[in-house]
Amino acid sequence: MLLQPIVNFINILAKKGVKNAIISPGSRNAPLTIALVRHPDIETKSISDERSAAFIALGMAQNLKEPVAICCTSGSAAYNYAPAVAEAFFQEIPLIILTADRPKEWIHQNDGQTIYQTDIFGKHVKKSFEIGADYSHSDAVWQIERTINDAVNLANIEPCGPVHINIPLREPFYPAENEEISFNVNSRVIEIVRSERTLSKESWHQLLTQFQDYDNILIAGGQSDKNDNLASVLNKLQDEFQIVCIGDSISNMGFEAISKHDLFLKVDAENLKPDLLITYGKSFISKGLKTFLRKNKAIEHWHLQIGDHLIDTFQSVTKIIPLQPIDFFTKLYEDLDFEQFRNGEEERNESFKKEWFNLEQKANIYLERFFQNEPQNFNEFFAIKYLMDALPANCQLHLANSMSVRYANYIGVNPKKNIEVFANRGTSGIDGCVSTAVGAALSTDKLVFLLVGDVAFFYDRNGLWNRYLPKNLRIILLNNHGGGIFRMIDGPSKQPELNDYFETLQTMNAQNTALDAEVEYLKVINYSELINQSVLFLDIEGKSKILEIETNSKINTEVFKEFKTNF
Amino acid sequence: MLLQPIVNFINILAKKGVKNAIISPGSRNAPLTIALVRHPDIETKSISDERSAAFIALGMAQNLKEPVAICCTSGSAAYNYAPAVAEAFFQEIPLIILTADRPKEWIHQNDGQTIYQTDIFGKHVKKSFEIGADYSHSDAVWQIERTINDAVNLANIEPCGPVHINIPLREPFYPAENEEISFNVNSRVIEIVRSERTLSKESWHQLLTQFQDYDNILIAGGQSDKNDNLASVLNKLQDEFQIVCIGDSISNMGFEAISKHDLFLKVDAENLKPDLLITYGKSFISKGLKTFLRKNKAIEHWHLQIGDHLIDTFQSVTKIIPLQPIDFFTKLYEDLDFEQFRNGEEERNESFKKEWFNLEQKANIYLERFFQNEPQNFNEFFAIKYLMDALPANCQLHLANSMSVRYANYIGVNPKKNIEVFANRGTSGIDGCVSTAVGAALSTDKLVFLLVGDVAFFYDRNGLWNRYLPKNLRIILLNNHGGGIFRMIDGPSKQPELNDYFETLQTMNAQNTALDAEVEYLKVINYSELINQSVLFLDIEGKSKILEIETNSKINTEVFKEFKTNF
Repeated sequence: MLLQPIVNFINILAKKGVKNAIISPGSRNAPLTIALVRHPDIETKSISDERSAAFIALGMAQNLKEPVAICCTSGSAAYNYAPAVAEAFFQEIPLIILTADRPKEWIHQNDGQTIYQTDIFGKHVKKSFEIGADYSHSDAVWQIERTINDAVNLANIEPCGPVHINIPLREPFYPAENEEISFNVNSRVIEIVRSERTLSKESWHQLLTQFQDYDNILIAGGQSDKNDNLASVLNKLQDEFQIVCIGDSISNMGFEAISKHDLFLKVDAENLKPDLLITYGKSFISKGLKTFLRKNKAIEHWHLQIGDHLIDTFQSVTKIIPLQPIDFFTKLYEDLDFEQFRNGEEERNESFKKEWFNLEQKANIYLERFFQNEPQNFNEFFAIKYLMDALPANCQLHLANSMSVRYANYIGVNPKKNIEVFANRGTSGIDGCVSTAVGAALSTDKLVFLLVGDVAFFYDRNGLWNRYLPKNLRIILLNNHGGGIFRMIDGPSKQPELNDYFETLQTMNAQNTALDAEVEYLKVINYSELINQSVLFLDIEGKSKILEIETNSKINTEVFKEFKTNF
Repeated sequence: MLLQPIVNFINILAKKGVKNAIISPGSRNAPLTIALVRHPDIETKSISDERSAAFIALGMAQNLKEPVAICCTSGSAAYNYAPAVAEAFFQEIPLIILTADRPKEWIHQNDGQTIYQTDIFGKHVKKSFEIGADYSHSDAVWQIERTINDAVNLANIEPCGPVHINIPLREPFYPAENEEISFNVNSRVIEIVRSERTLSKESWHQLLTQFQDYDNILIAGGQSDKNDNLASVLNKLQDEFQIVCIGDSISNMGFEAISKHDLFLKVDAENLKPDLLITYGKSFISKGLKTFLRKNKAIEHWHLQIGDHLIDTFQSVTKIIPLQPIDFFTKLYEDLDFEQFRNGEEERNESFKKEWFNLEQKANIYLERFFQNEPQNFNEFFAIKYLMDALPANCQLHLANSMSVRYANYIGVNPKKNIEVFANRGTSGIDGCVSTAVGAALSTDKLVFLLVGDVAFFYDRNGLWNRYLPKNLRIILLNNHGGGIFRMIDGPSKQPELNDYFETLQTMNAQNTALDAEVEYLKVINYSELINQSVLFLDIEGKSKILEIETNSKINTEVFKEFKTNF
């Protein structure tokens, strides 16, 4: 085979631990496709719409915590990857992006499927590589072998992220009929030996001393993977040291931390202002929390982050601590615990924590009361509450952007159920929510629920256009026939353009989409139907299922406003 | 209103002649949306999927021969424009891309819907501008006013193309309730006075002298807008001066030029080799023609192009002539005609033209004979021939990429029917074929036919997800349940991966998509149904229509192979 260096390239990809690849059909990428499909250690799937393909890979990589490869042909195909690549970059999810290209001399020569693919993803990849089209010189072969090693290493170094390799290829693309390709070759693997960052004794001592100067300490977790060890140590810090922990649903705190802040946190609540703020994780959903912390700046704000790019979401960072949250908080707890053992129980001021938890409790009571009866008029907020209460333990919950993620953040996820929460909050786009959930469901045996509005659902319905839809996918579709969020916001709701240009009425239901995708379809238009149908919907048996909840946007807005106003 | 500079910006856009805008809903772009919608001289439409929105705008701009604006919110929304932007760039179609952005200080700070939007389209725009987020200084206002003038001017300067303006915006985004915004302001328009390039007398004399040195002259037209004046003068050059004109279906030659070359042109046909090759227009479809001209290089190759980027599709260019085809060929004809009048009829060698047209005639006879009877087994090639013969005069025909455009090129478009042919051959992607045809249909009263395969159709079915589908849209859907092209090519058809990774079997029919889009749906599975249903399908009355032609991929391949082999 003429393209043996490409076969080696894929062989190294596999040896470096990449076990999954999503391929979009094309001719230019045929050598890559053939090597990927035939490699015994790589599982491949074919997805025609590259936009969806990349989000499916993202959903898989997010779940597997390992890089997934995507592979497409030359031309605009690569650009269809871009929305998912940007999401992966900001959400720090490893992807190996393999774009076939025509040899460079063909760019902009009016000869099909050729665009400027070099660096096509701009700053939204950790690095963009390009190999040569000719492999006759041994240095060129060395570059190919080195590049794939470099790319997978980089994707895996924290902060993880997408890495791009542009691969110009000359014809012929195909082996001869019945020609076998051989992976049994000397493919050199270059490994980066795992290392860890630690703080010097002096730095740590200084931190600890400063820490003990403060009474009012708030630990805020941004979007994070679920981590039981971290939950356990944070819980102990909160329990034993009067520290307050706060997190959105996507923070996956996993214990009884503050989570109803969207409901009770007012910008002028100075009694809740922390002296020391410690943050970790990626983005926060709650606009209320962000505004509060920006206005009520802590005296010191320590942010735990591994990457070099300075992130200052609350405009108050004073120290970047380049440690993993689990390492930092474990050491912090151990040292505080030892101090306590040595010096006896110190009297920490309890009032800060009480203020926060009194409000949390009040919010919880309000929430239970608000939802305790059936709604007078059926609406999506009540439906979501019902379903979130009914979610089985140990499932995954994907929250689509726009209203879904906000509703869910008001209601909160029961920390006792061990539910993992995901959302594309890297760019907060609606463009790949369905595909991401499909990717997740393809890479776990757990039930994967997606809470999604109609605009995000239909936008990405190509996520359901494939032969791989797994049984464990459950889509909760909130169909209010438009972008309901715009009716919720004061600005657009008062403009004459609301219907046509913000909410953008759309008339579709998901029934036909479900038929096409060959998934089970359930639809409810009132509360009792919801209760009945959700039994079937939540059942682990059967195929993928869509539960379409059709509501009226005006009623939804009234109910949600009432909810927020009456607290 | 705080955002008066943005209102002025849109006012200048309108004064510069931009009459249409496709808006995708969002909050960050609300000031732009409101100004666009309320402007009395701009017609706006709301399309939720930005990928589709941009292709719809492209279809409109292509038809209207004037820039169309697209406007989206911040974040990954802009990236969904990218496939259409690349297509517009290489197809030289003017688009004004308005991407709302968050103020720059928020980039990569883990705060939603913020990506690196500066220069996001890379080399696929003529220019990318960015304005400031603060308009308090008069110089900032000057920049805004200047930038939109510059952008529209650039988009319109040939070669036309997409121009991007990134627009960071601060809150508030919305005027107060019932607040009127005023376009009645001093919005300065900067016009570029239209100029034309001409050749010096000496240059022209030299060209003409050289021209007359050659006997075997071939004029080859790449993708071009339909132009009756150009057709007329090329026809006269061919008729009176033994010059051969050749063009693919997308060249829109509009007279009896060579068009069946895909069938008869063999790479070793040295008798067809031109001494002087003159080319104009953009890309060529025919791989046969490209290979032939690359192997049989003309002694001189003149390429007419206005742009500065050297394009050398046939690897043989010796002179770039920076003139419009109509100007060059008109002057050429006039001068040749005058010479003939002065010097009497010159004996030009007829054999070159005869060689070409003998083969063209042979191909035409073969085509008629091949299709004269009903097919033994129903197949898409026969169906396309039937429908292309049945197309009404003065319609538009959009050819989707992959097999559709190739089939149509074999069959040819009847030059007497005044049919305009379009195809996204800038990047040759399948990603926006449906949306482009929708955009075309929205901007003409003519019937707009789209010939499209099932993969391209479902890939871009969001093109039908809007409230504007025009009556004059007619979609001919060739459903062979996969990427039939891969079965046609020798390479992939012999690989074990054919079914799953190249052809990529997909089971859907368009019935449900048609129901959702509320368009008429007709389906045929044999030749007599095709004949019956096409009457209804071709009827100008009624709604948008889809005619789904379901065929078997293996039979299609056999028929097409037989067609090519037996010539």
